[in-house]
Amino acid sequence: MARRRQLYEGKAKVLFEGPEPGTLVQYFKDDATAGNGAKSGIITGKGVLNNRISEYLMLKLHEINIPTHFIRRLNMREQLIREVEIIPLEVVVRNVAAGSLSKRLGIPEGTRLPRTIIEYYYKNDALGDPMVSEEHIAAFNWAAPQDMDDMNQLALRTNDFLMGMFTAVGITLVDFKLEFGRIWEGEEMRILLADEISPDNCRLWDSKTNEKMDKDRFRRDMGRVEEAYQEVAKRLGILPESGNGDLKGPEAVQ
Amino acid sequence: MARRRQLYEGKAKVLFEGPEPGTLVQYFKDDATAGNGAKSGIITGKGVLNNRISEYLMLKLHEINIPTHFIRRLNMREQLIREVEIIPLEVVVRNVAAGSLSKRLGIPEGTRLPRTIIEYYYKNDALGDPMVSEEHIAAFNWAAPQDMDDMNQLALRTNDFLMGMFTAVGITLVDFKLEFGRIWEGEEMRILLADEISPDNCRLWDSKTNEKMDKDRFRRDMGRVEEAYQEVAKRLGILPESGNGDLKGPEAVQ
Repeated sequence: MARRRQLYEGKAKVLFEGPEPGTLVQYFKDDATAGNGAKSGIITGKGVLNNRISEYLMLKLHEINIPTHFIRRLNMREQLIREVEIIPLEVVVRNVAAGSLSKRLGIPEGTRLPRTIIEYYYKNDALGDPMVSEEHIAAFNWAAPQDMDDMNQLALRTNDFLMGMFTAVGITLVDFKLEFGRIWEGEEMRILLADEISPDNCRLWDSKTNEKMDKDRFRRDMGRVEEAYQEVAKRLGILPESGNGDLKGPEAVQ
Repeated sequence: MARRRQLYEGKAKVLFEGPEPGTLVQYFKDDATAGNGAKSGIITGKGVLNNRISEYLMLKLHEINIPTHFIRRLNMREQLIREVEIIPLEVVVRNVAAGSLSKRLGIPEGTRLPRTIIEYYYKNDALGDPMVSEEHIAAFNWAAPQDMDDMNQLALRTNDFLMGMFTAVGITLVDFKLEFGRIWEGEEMRILLADEISPDNCRLWDSKTNEKMDKDRFRRDMGRVEEAYQEVAKRLGILPESGNGDLKGPEAVQ
């Protein structure tokens, strides 16, 4: 295949020009960063696993009519996606207190929240992705009120579905981050779920032991990061149950 | 325990006075009927399984803040529930064409619907539970517009969650029936999910083979009805995986 033109390189993914107009190729790296790049490293096999996990979850979300940018997986590390205009917000959905919410509000990690909370962060590395409210978003026109309604509704539906899915496989969905993009179909604008859904941007705890099965293992130097990602894939039925926990190489998840 | 006063006997359940005001005891029978009572029989162990399955699903729905009448399971066949004023509607949520929808509209069973469809049936055995629209409901004041909004929202959230849960264990949630009730807390009225959620009122198909795992096996004389209900419980992790498929007696699911 001819070398594709690279359009953007992020911390965990690279975007290339797609084979057709309106498409992109999303490549999943093994690189991991935390604290807005303060810490960085490699999680061997992460890109392969996240490509598969995100494919699986987005296909299932599509089945309940949640529109996503995902078209199809191309190979172990690449998926074909629709080119969208990314809305410069990280939409965080929280069911249980953890991470920055625990720190900022003094709520112990693991406290079930009285209701699901949605937070918005302005996507801007130089500023450290600051938290913003709907007031800021409206004032700076990052998203229109109708976009916000659509994003909130899609985020809550995604949460209900993923809560069901992870609950069924013994995992607590503590929180997760979504990104959205806009596409135009003729005159009509639609909001799609974009980016990825994986242990890189979900907090996933074993329901029985509360053991972390996500990127917090990397952020907090807890070790067994790859194994945790593999376990998530196995429980979702993406990796065979019979796996022995070793990722033998990318072939292991083909 | 002193014999409780029976308040109501339905086709599959009996309601008794509860130990405290505002509570009832819901007893699950093994009796099964179909075609509004035209066909009747016994599915051995069904009551025990439905008690467990409905307990499990309502507890999980409670965790995502969907209010239900369920308080706690008392024993193998009984659960303590809140006494509600039942809204005389069956709310049917459909993801895939089957049953009466296929028959009435000529859509082959198994056709994925373009979007989730909610239907309402007026609970009235003498009339055969006729389908009604929001027009009829408003005209006859069976539920207020605000009740309808609440019920629709709860039904769609329940669907998203159960779709996730069943998808994760290899089951297609084709459709299901919900009932709702009202409670008053001081001046405030709230709508709760009532009745039960079980293979008696859900259509559940194995995702790979499309084999039926619900009451249609009884309705259509397909056999292996008990085994299908058990398999649902096993996949949800309620019965041990190691079960051999025989229900040895109610003890098997204690």
